Amino acid sequence: MLNRHSSTPLYEQVAQLIQEKVNEETWQAGKKLPSERELCELFAVSRITIRQAIKQLEDQGILYRTHGVGTFISRKTKLQQPLEQINSFQQMLEQQGVIASTKILANKQVLSSVQMAKILNLQPTDYVSNLQLIGYGDEQPMVYYNSYFSIPVGQSIMPNAQAMETQGKPFSTLDLYPLTNTYQPTHLEQTFEAHTANKELASTMQIEEGWPIFQVTSIMYKDAYPLEYREAYYRGDQYRFFIKRKL
Amino acid sequence: MLNRHSSTPLYEQVAQLIQEKVNEETWQAGKKLPSERELCELFAVSRITIRQAIKQLEDQGILYRTHGVGTFISRKTKLQQPLEQINSFQQMLEQQGVIASTKILANKQVLSSVQMAKILNLQPTDYVSNLQLIGYGDEQPMVYYNSYFSIPVGQSIMPNAQAMETQGKPFSTLDLYPLTNTYQPTHLEQTFEAHTANKELASTMQIEEGWPIFQVTSIMYKDAYPLEYREAYYRGDQYRFFIKRKL
Repeated sequence: MLNRHSSTPLYEQVAQLIQEKVNEETWQAGKKLPSERELCELFAVSRITIRQAIKQLEDQGILYRTHGVGTFISRKTKLQQPLEQINSFQQMLEQQGVIASTKILANKQVLSSVQMAKILNLQPTDYVSNLQLIGYGDEQPMVYYNSYFSIPVGQSIMPNAQAMETQGKPFSTLDLYPLTNTYQPTHLEQTFEAHTANKELASTMQIEEGWPIFQVTSIMYKDAYPLEYREAYYRGDQYRFFIKRKL
Repeated sequence: MLNRHSSTPLYEQVAQLIQEKVNEETWQAGKKLPSERELCELFAVSRITIRQAIKQLEDQGILYRTHGVGTFISRKTKLQQPLEQINSFQQMLEQQGVIASTKILANKQVLSSVQMAKILNLQPTDYVSNLQLIGYGDEQPMVYYNSYFSIPVGQSIMPNAQAMETQGKPFSTLDLYPLTNTYQPTHLEQTFEAHTANKELASTMQIEEGWPIFQVTSIMYKDAYPLEYREAYYRGDQYRFFIKRKL
């Protein structure tokens, strides 16, 4: 209850009440906060007070605002992914108490683009295998993987993807190579970029347009031979990558 | 000129004309594209045609759209920054043909927050040094560094920052340590996140609210001793980080 005679400013009291609702999960992580108007009515305070309370909770990282989209309840902690070592998708999420799952969104052969042919060492008239996966954490889409392989690599990889999906085992493409006898990546090149979600990606990942996206583009090699070109799109509000290094 | 009897669709012709303007730098990288209405008038085509042309150029990475902000002309290439090695700010940009400069935005002592005291191994009642820098590439803000040091480290670092600025030498905080006799970081811990710019950051970096931001949070250590806590905000459309690693 608000105490209008307290020395604690009203907006701080409102912020505390909002935080309580987040703590007791009346308002859940990842969901949209009620509108300013609804909050005004709920707490019987002015819009200015609500805005001050929201601002304070944003500064504390409890709420999360995306320009033109709205205010959301933050996860208590972002998923932590180390950059130095490769963990399996399942292992990485489950170590952090999140239930992982993977669905195959698409699995097809398409005509290579000129750029893709160059990357995968193919002819521009060749076909390539395209595998699209969604990685879920606690049933929310967390990452969208869009991978391209040469046809022989694809033919070796795809049955494993289908078997893993059928068995309900969470996976990323990197978890599939150990199941092949032939292909095992020896090294990879990655780039990291910050983007915002366009309409298509927002729809695929069930987020709003304009949402922050951490994009990781990888080329996996077996020695000099490129096995895979992969674009991975991680929810910016859900993932944090880290590295420790010597100087 | 558009050829309305050509077999090439009108929107592709418009896309070509837009690309020519970008190539000849009539429309410059980083600037906003004229509005749809202006483009309709300029090319005497419908809004649908303009939208198709813009969509194609977006897919090719020539234009860059941020939800609720507008459509911009992309840099030809993003700045590439390796994750494995630390280059000086100047070296990193100038290797890529970009003129670097640095300005001190703020240089002050502030009361430590509880969190900062914990990170820097101080008492919550201690003061800390705060150094805020803007790193420019070709006179555009590229990165905003917000760093905190214990007072002794700050006192050792600050004169070097001021000397570098006076001499017009570009720098980041990591370039300042070799100039001190006492402090030389031995290792660091970094986290990487995708965000969108809030109002304050947008104003500091002269970008629009909602713009993609690549945030790198670092703690620099000399052995077990924490020298610096730094939040670096890179323009998401201008930077790409990369790494090569063995599996």
